[in-house]
Amino acid sequence: MSLIIIGSVAFDAIETPFGKTDKIVGGAATYASLAASYFYDKTRIVGVVGDDFQQSDIKILNDHGIDTEGLQIKHGEKSFFWAGRYHNDMNSRDTLVTELNVLGTFDPVIPENYQDCEYLMLGNLTPKVQQTVIERLRNRPKLIVLDTMNFWMDIALDDLLDTLKMIDVLTINDAEARQLSGEYSLVKAAKKILTMGPKYLIIKKGEHGALLFDETQIFSAPALPLAEVFDPTGAGDTFAGGFIGYLAKVGTINFNNMKNALIYGSALASFCVEKFGTEKIVNLTQEEIDNRVREFVSLSAFTI
Amino acid sequence: MSLIIIGSVAFDAIETPFGKTDKIVGGAATYASLAASYFYDKTRIVGVVGDDFQQSDIKILNDHGIDTEGLQIKHGEKSFFWAGRYHNDMNSRDTLVTELNVLGTFDPVIPENYQDCEYLMLGNLTPKVQQTVIERLRNRPKLIVLDTMNFWMDIALDDLLDTLKMIDVLTINDAEARQLSGEYSLVKAAKKILTMGPKYLIIKKGEHGALLFDETQIFSAPALPLAEVFDPTGAGDTFAGGFIGYLAKVGTINFNNMKNALIYGSALASFCVEKFGTEKIVNLTQEEIDNRVREFVSLSAFTI
Repeated sequence: MSLIIIGSVAFDAIETPFGKTDKIVGGAATYASLAASYFYDKTRIVGVVGDDFQQSDIKILNDHGIDTEGLQIKHGEKSFFWAGRYHNDMNSRDTLVTELNVLGTFDPVIPENYQDCEYLMLGNLTPKVQQTVIERLRNRPKLIVLDTMNFWMDIALDDLLDTLKMIDVLTINDAEARQLSGEYSLVKAAKKILTMGPKYLIIKKGEHGALLFDETQIFSAPALPLAEVFDPTGAGDTFAGGFIGYLAKVGTINFNNMKNALIYGSALASFCVEKFGTEKIVNLTQEEIDNRVREFVSLSAFTI
Repeated sequence: MSLIIIGSVAFDAIETPFGKTDKIVGGAATYASLAASYFYDKTRIVGVVGDDFQQSDIKILNDHGIDTEGLQIKHGEKSFFWAGRYHNDMNSRDTLVTELNVLGTFDPVIPENYQDCEYLMLGNLTPKVQQTVIERLRNRPKLIVLDTMNFWMDIALDDLLDTLKMIDVLTINDAEARQLSGEYSLVKAAKKILTMGPKYLIIKKGEHGALLFDETQIFSAPALPLAEVFDPTGAGDTFAGGFIGYLAKVGTINFNNMKNALIYGSALASFCVEKFGTEKIVNLTQEEIDNRVREFVSLSAFTI
């Protein structure tokens, strides 16, 4: 029984109105696995890095109980690198540099002892690679969550549509839900997308929270209004990792547990944006998480 | 004991991607008083129209138990008229025509039997006129809610700041909260605005719901995701009317009742946008409202 998270493990260089970083450790699988590790102790990564990635960086993951046997290290090659600059509103950003490096030829390898996978998080990657991972698991996991983005809708829509047929939960943002469905209303968009394969759809709305849809129900999770958003990088991946990590912990997939998973994911994401990169989410205590979740309860509870 | 709603009573001509109307009855006070009338039976209007306004239009308000003694009828003059066209996303619109007409010289008259006012809703008008209404009430109402917009921040900021010192609750949208405070973070914006006079701030975020702030607490009300938004005109006024109408009904001002008032206001607003103009909110049943509020409960309830 385990949770596999596949996605980029990378270096990022980030500029925000509050400052800038040199190359720091980032990547979807890094954020998602760190977030999941607070809930579930059998979290495993599938990914690839170059030999510029430090053992000390990998140790940070291992110290969180994250199994990195599926993290390939390509000698003589470089890790995926992304540099970006956020605008004042922190909702929009310019990509300054994208160097695919090892990610350009990424062929995911599933170690034998990962074959007990029950929960699978497919972080944002080419749909073909996401699909390969599903195919390389001998048993179909109990829950497959897929994150993707507009880029793949633009250049690999058919592959994406094929992959959607194989998954349970899709996480995208509101603009992507509109693009994928051709519907402006998110209710209509969700209805269409839920005919494409996934049984659940999560629409991420950043500072406006997130919506969860199944065929008949909708849940609206608030975002915690924050005084300072320091660096939004990785917030969506942290959300997704917290979401699937919480579900792996409770072990039963239903709409009510998914609602709570959305709240836990949102809580983790709210920490993520408070510091640069993974700085905040590498050092959380259970008490901090519990207190933050209580803030979400008081933020949205009412009694009529 | 009564609730006074002051604001425009007007004609609108509306174009949306779904169709267009001739001149139909609109105006902030019309929407707000109709919404309030579902909760509170002593709702009174202060406003002005020309003699182009039909007795049958006024009768619609009276049929809802709304007292229109404070609605001046200027003979030989024309009512305020606004024409606008909504874009495909329904979030942005172009104003095609604004004819102030009687509103240009509006001098609000408070009928003697309105002097028992306990709840005062100051709909969007020049801050000077809003202030005049407060000054013409012999006793300070228990609760004063003020709605305003960026236009007054641009051309009458000092008057607006003076008026803010006299009120309890301010309702504005997120862009306006940012403009008024000079802060991008809504948490910081709210902190600043709450030093300007109001004890409570409501930030309206349209399809993303609304936030309620006091000095120490935040509440996030979801918006109901809708399959069809037919015409957003008047949704903000309907929200405000439902909000203050509900509070007038329960009679006790505290954060918990305000949270419920936000939900009832949001429920009324969600009906408003389903048809052109006031068409939907003129004919609601208590059962429809109760069912809609239950949808809000199931939309946002979770148990951790």
